[in-house]
Amino acid sequence: MAQKPSIPKGTRDFNAEEVAKRSYIMETIKEQFQRYGFQPIETPSFENSETLMGKYGDEGDRLIFKILNSGEYIEKFNSNLVYIIKPLIQYFNLGVNRKKEDEGFNLKAYFKELYKDFSKEVKNRNSNFFIEEKLPEEKFIIDLLEIIDYQYDKIEDFGFVVEENIEYAVSIVFSDFYFALKSNYLTAYISEKALRYDLTVPFARYVVQHQNEIEFPFKRYQIQPVWRADRPQKGRFREFYQCDADVVGSKSLFQEVEFVQLYDAVFTALKLEGVTIKINNRKILSGIAEVIGAQDKLIDFTVALDKLDKIGEEKVKEEMLNKGISEEGISKLQPLFSMTGSFGSQIGQLKSILSSSEEGKKGVQELEFIEESIFKLGLKTAKLQLDVTLARGLNYYTGAIFEVSAPDGVKMGSIGGGGRYDDLTSIFGKPDTSGVGISFGLDRIYLVLEELSLFPDTITEATKVLFISFGDAEAMASLQAVSKLRENGVKAEIYPDAVTSGKQMKKQMTYANRRNIPYVVLVGEEELNAKTFALKHMETGEQQTVEFKGLLKQLQS
Amino acid sequence: MAQKPSIPKGTRDFNAEEVAKRSYIMETIKEQFQRYGFQPIETPSFENSETLMGKYGDEGDRLIFKILNSGEYIEKFNSNLVYIIKPLIQYFNLGVNRKKEDEGFNLKAYFKELYKDFSKEVKNRNSNFFIEEKLPEEKFIIDLLEIIDYQYDKIEDFGFVVEENIEYAVSIVFSDFYFALKSNYLTAYISEKALRYDLTVPFARYVVQHQNEIEFPFKRYQIQPVWRADRPQKGRFREFYQCDADVVGSKSLFQEVEFVQLYDAVFTALKLEGVTIKINNRKILSGIAEVIGAQDKLIDFTVALDKLDKIGEEKVKEEMLNKGISEEGISKLQPLFSMTGSFGSQIGQLKSILSSSEEGKKGVQELEFIEESIFKLGLKTAKLQLDVTLARGLNYYTGAIFEVSAPDGVKMGSIGGGGRYDDLTSIFGKPDTSGVGISFGLDRIYLVLEELSLFPDTITEATKVLFISFGDAEAMASLQAVSKLRENGVKAEIYPDAVTSGKQMKKQMTYANRRNIPYVVLVGEEELNAKTFALKHMETGEQQTVEFKGLLKQLQS
Repeated sequence: MAQKPSIPKGTRDFNAEEVAKRSYIMETIKEQFQRYGFQPIETPSFENSETLMGKYGDEGDRLIFKILNSGEYIEKFNSNLVYIIKPLIQYFNLGVNRKKEDEGFNLKAYFKELYKDFSKEVKNRNSNFFIEEKLPEEKFIIDLLEIIDYQYDKIEDFGFVVEENIEYAVSIVFSDFYFALKSNYLTAYISEKALRYDLTVPFARYVVQHQNEIEFPFKRYQIQPVWRADRPQKGRFREFYQCDADVVGSKSLFQEVEFVQLYDAVFTALKLEGVTIKINNRKILSGIAEVIGAQDKLIDFTVALDKLDKIGEEKVKEEMLNKGISEEGISKLQPLFSMTGSFGSQIGQLKSILSSSEEGKKGVQELEFIEESIFKLGLKTAKLQLDVTLARGLNYYTGAIFEVSAPDGVKMGSIGGGGRYDDLTSIFGKPDTSGVGISFGLDRIYLVLEELSLFPDTITEATKVLFISFGDAEAMASLQAVSKLRENGVKAEIYPDAVTSGKQMKKQMTYANRRNIPYVVLVGEEELNAKTFALKHMETGEQQTVEFKGLLKQLQS
Repeated sequence: MAQKPSIPKGTRDFNAEEVAKRSYIMETIKEQFQRYGFQPIETPSFENSETLMGKYGDEGDRLIFKILNSGEYIEKFNSNLVYIIKPLIQYFNLGVNRKKEDEGFNLKAYFKELYKDFSKEVKNRNSNFFIEEKLPEEKFIIDLLEIIDYQYDKIEDFGFVVEENIEYAVSIVFSDFYFALKSNYLTAYISEKALRYDLTVPFARYVVQHQNEIEFPFKRYQIQPVWRADRPQKGRFREFYQCDADVVGSKSLFQEVEFVQLYDAVFTALKLEGVTIKINNRKILSGIAEVIGAQDKLIDFTVALDKLDKIGEEKVKEEMLNKGISEEGISKLQPLFSMTGSFGSQIGQLKSILSSSEEGKKGVQELEFIEESIFKLGLKTAKLQLDVTLARGLNYYTGAIFEVSAPDGVKMGSIGGGGRYDDLTSIFGKPDTSGVGISFGLDRIYLVLEELSLFPDTITEATKVLFISFGDAEAMASLQAVSKLRENGVKAEIYPDAVTSGKQMKKQMTYANRRNIPYVVLVGEEELNAKTFALKHMETGEQQTVEFKGLLKQLQS
C-alpha cells in the first residue's frame, strides 16, 4: 500500500523560489564575510557524542539529536546487562526486599558478594559470551541499587505485594529496566554520535584539533545547518541554518569594532536599512551586581533586568526582591531604569553608577572605545545602541554582547547576536584563547525581507525561454538553438513533447505561464525552413520573427 | 579533563581551501543545471523512517543512519515488552522446553492461551502502565517463538542444561532479548527518523507530496549531503554530497539527449576534457537475456556481464555457467564479447543479435535515437560510448543507463551516473510517472581535478591585503582605509594588534605569508601624517608609497 508522504515535524521542504531566496541571503552574508577576511570552514553534520554532550547544559543535552549506532548496537549493552540481571533475580527470589533492608539488611554488601561470585563464575567459564566491556564493580552496584529503588516504587504503585508476585515483579523489573534508567543510561551504550547542535562547539573542537595548521588570529565563517529536538512552533524549526563569523586568538577590541561594521555591511547589502545593533558588556553587568551587593546573584539579577522591555520597571524590581536582592541595592539601580539619551551620555551615566567597581569601569571603557571607533568610521544604515539590559546566555560571554533587532515597525525577535568569550577552547585542551563572534538568524532575516518586499525580483527568475516545437525535425532544430543559447549563458528549456494538437499547444503555453518563463519560442515548419524563430513575449503577447542572432540578443538583455 | 578532539570516522572537516574548491565544483554544476532549466529544491536532512526504509534493499536499510527518539524513548518499547516477558518466565519456570515440544507439546497454542489470560488481566487492572501501543496477538506469538528458538541455541551453546538452571537461563533470555531480535526489532520502537541516504527517494517523496504545486514535466536539481553507515575507506565517506538533476513526468527521449549534453557542458565548464559518457539500456540487457533463454536470470546475467572489464571473457562465461545459464545461450553471446567499432557499428551488431527480441529492438532504437541526436548537436569535449555491459543497480532503471568515467590515464571509478526509471513515485502513491536523472560524484571529481591541477588559482585566493599598523591612531586610519576598500569589493584585513616591536613586526609579516595574502600595507606615523600608505608586494618584496586612490586601483586589479 502506498505511503502518504510527509516529513518529520519541525523540518521543511524548500521549493525553487525558497531555495533562491535563502541562497541570496547566504551569498550576501558570505560575500561580506570574505571582504572582512573571514575564511570558510565546514565541519561534519554529526560529531562524537562526547564532543557535544555537556556543553549546552542539561536542557541542551536533551535537545541534541542522537544517532543510533549501526549494526547489532544492543549487544554491547546486553553484555553488561547480564551482570545485573542474575543477582536481581536472586534478590527477588530470595525475598530480599525493602522491609529487610529497613531491618538492617546491608544491601550493598550483599551485592558486593554477588558480584564477586558472579565474576568468578564468568571467569571460570572462560566464555566471551558475556563480556564485551566489563562493568566495574562500583558502577554495577550503583546501578543495581538505583534499579531496585525505582522498581519498588513502580511495583507498589501498581498495586503488587512483591513477595506474593515474584514472577510478575521480576517481569516488571526487566521490562522496566531501561525505563528505570531514564533512557539516557541506555543512550550511552547505543549511541556514539550526535547531530550538530550549533556551530560554536564544533568550531572550538576544530580550532583545537587543527591548531597546528591554523594561523592565529583565526577568522573563520561557517554557514551550515544545525539540529535541535525542540518543540517545533512558528518560526522555530528542528533543522535550521546558522551563519557564524568568529575570530579566535586576539583580545583586541578592534575585533568588536569590525563586527559592528560587519553587521552594518551585511544588512546594508541586503537593503535592510535601519536595523539596531544593541551592545552591552558582561563586565558592566558584573559591575552593577557588585555595586548593588548582588555579586552572588549575577544570573538572577541579569535574568530579571533582561525583562525590562517586556514586563516594565515595577515587575523587574519585584522579581529582584523575590530573588533576594536587597531594597537598598535595587534603589541604587534607579539611575539605570531612567537612563536615556545618546550612547555617549549613557556612557557618562554608567561611569557614575559604576565608579566604585573596577570591573564595571573596565566594561564602560571597552564600550566607549567601540563607540568612539564606530563614530569615526561611520555606519552606513545601522544604528549602534547601548542596551544595559542585554544579557544573552550570560554564562558564555565574558566581554562584549551583541544583538541585532529588525528595523522599527517589524515585529520580530533578534535577527543576529554574538559576543566575546574568553575560554571556549579550553574544554578541548587549549586554554587562554579569547574569541569573539557574531551570528545571523537566516530564517528570521528571510521573514523580515519577505515582509518588507526586499528580495530582488531577479533572484527568482529561473528559465528565460521555453521552446515549443511542432515535430521531430523542429524539435531537433530547437535543441540546436537551445544548446547555443545555453552556451551563451541563457537559461533555456525545450518542452520535451512536440505539439500535435491545439490542446497540447495550450498545455505547453500554460506550463510556460505557470513557471513564470518570460519568453516562448515557437518552431514550426515555416520557421524550420526559414531558419527563424517565432519569439513571443508572454506578458505583452507580442510576437516577432527573428534569426538566431536576434534571438540571442533579445534573450541576453 | 580536556577531551582530545576528534571527529567520527568517515567524516571530514574542510578547511578554507577545501571549501573553496568544493564550492567551485558545486557552483559550476549548479550554473549548468540552471542553464538547462532545472530548478533547485531542498529536502530535510532527516526523513520519517518509513519514507526511507525498504527502498534500498536489506543492505541499504542496514546502512541508513537512524536517529534516536527524544525524551524517554524506551518507554514505548517497554510497554510492549511486558507482554512478552511474563509468559516467557512462566514458560521457563514450567519447564516447557524443546524436549516437550518434540514430544508433541503445542507451543503456539500454549502461548495463545497465555496471551488471552494476560490481556484480560491487563484490561481488568485498567492500568495504562503497560499499554501504549498494544502488540497484536500474531506478532506477540511470533516474537515469542523466535526468542525462545534463539535462546535455546544460545543457552545450550553456553553449556547449560536449561532445566537445571532455570534462574540462569531466564537471566540470559532477558539479557539477550534485544540481541535475539537483532536490534532492528528494537529500532522500530526507539527511532522514527533517519538521515537521508540518497537524494532520489526524498525527491520521489517530494514530488508526490507537492504534486499539486508542481508543473510537470518537473525538472529539479538538488545538491545536498547524504549519509551512509558504510565501512569508511579511501574515497568512501559516511557523509558526502550528491549533486542530482532529474526530470519527472515525461517519457520523451529528448530528456536523455539533454542529459548527455548536460554532462558534456558541466565537464567542459570544469575544464575536465575527454570524459567518456557510457550509455546502455535496460531493454537491451533484457533482450539479450531473452535471446539466450535466461529471462529468469537477468540479474545473474548482468552482474556477470558487468565484470567483463575486470575479470575478462573467460571468467564471465564461467560465472554465467555456474549461475545456470546454458552453454548454448552463452555461445549466442559471442558477438557481444567481440563487439567493437563506433557507436553506429555496435548498434548494427546489436540489431542483428537482438533481432528476435521485441524489447531488445526497442532498446536499440532508443540508443540509436540518442546517438543520432547527439551526433547532430555535437559534444564539446566528452565522448559518447555504447557500453552493453553497463548495468548500475539494474532493478532501478527501466530504460537508459548512464555512467561517466574520467579521462584516460586517470585511475578513478565512475564520476557520474544515472538513468531512466519508470515508476519511482508509485511507492508514495503516484503511479505512472516516468523519470530520468543523472548524478555527479563530487568527491571523485574533486580528486580528478586535483590530480590534473585543474582548479583555477583564483578560487583559493582569500584576503588580498593585510594592514599592519604601529599605534592606535595608525590602526584607526588603517581601519578607515580598510572599510573603504571593502566597500569597493576588496577583501581586506587589519592585524588586530599594533606593532610595537621588531618581533611583532616579524610575526605579522609571517602571518601574511602563511595566509598567502599577496599585499601588506604598513601604516606608521609618517604615513599617518602624510595620509599615504606603504604598499608592499609580498612575492617581489617591492614597496611603494601611495595615496588611497592608488591603493584602491592597485588592489582592485
